[in-house]
Amino acid sequence: MNCPGCESSDKDPNFVFQTNYWKVFLNPKQTYLGRSIATLKRHCASLSDLTNEEWDDFVGLVKIIESAYKKALSATLFNWSCLMNDAYQNEPPNPHVHWHLRPRYENPVRLFGLTFEDLEFGHHYARPETSYTAPQDIQEKIIERLRESLEGEP
Amino acid sequence: MNCPGCESSDKDPNFVFQTNYWKVFLNPKQTYLGRSIATLKRHCASLSDLTNEEWDDFVGLVKIIESAYKKALSATLFNWSCLMNDAYQNEPPNPHVHWHLRPRYENPVRLFGLTFEDLEFGHHYARPETSYTAPQDIQEKIIERLRESLEGEP
Repeated sequence: MNCPGCESSDKDPNFVFQTNYWKVFLNPKQTYLGRSIATLKRHCASLSDLTNEEWDDFVGLVKIIESAYKKALSATLFNWSCLMNDAYQNEPPNPHVHWHLRPRYENPVRLFGLTFEDLEFGHHYARPETSYTAPQDIQEKIIERLRESLEGEP
Repeated sequence: MNCPGCESSDKDPNFVFQTNYWKVFLNPKQTYLGRSIATLKRHCASLSDLTNEEWDDFVGLVKIIESAYKKALSATLFNWSCLMNDAYQNEPPNPHVHWHLRPRYENPVRLFGLTFEDLEFGHHYARPETSYTAPQDIQEKIIERLRESLEGEP
């Protein structure tokens, strides 16, 4: 059965980094600068089914991301969510555990000649999301900047 | 400094259950039947600052909740999110780690003479949320039903 989570790979242009059990990709929608997806490397349907090792690795991932993304992008805080709704549009559903990460910003961030502004700071992220899909070269620059910060992480 | 997370207690009418490090409350908004909040017992500003013991306990909490809420309410899946946006409306912000849990339902659930229907099933939860605030007696019945299922959990 088709599974976008299983098909994503470190060869994808929006791949950022990986740990033992998780791979992280930049979401092309960059309304919230640095918005990313952390996908479990193994096909697994729910948080209840994660192994202790996968959870421990996720705990490390949260620390690495929050530290590196703060340094790279001056994020103020982070919205984490594990939803998996879309998988249930298919019959049968084939969910694959992944986390959405939206960094949130008290102040506008100027990067690469652009200004990223978190218009909903202090509130739930916008739904439906005001869709700023970053051009490929901007995505690459964001990823490069994130990787530089990630290098300093344990 | 005022902190709703610290002030919430197992004496509150919407308290459901607790583990060593987390306390769980029913959210009065029951658009998504069983919607709850899991709050860390200790004041702590971000996921990066949780101790390993608090994370381990959270992992157990996820398993307990997903199992018990499925049994009690016939939930199909669960949306988990840790956002902490509202705390940043205050100066200085005083965030306290908590998780929002929204059970999601493929099929309508009939309980206590009411029908709970997840109109956005397969999609992101509604924002702004169509606000169904359950009457106090219905909240109590939902909590009682959850507690009965929770009794069977390890």
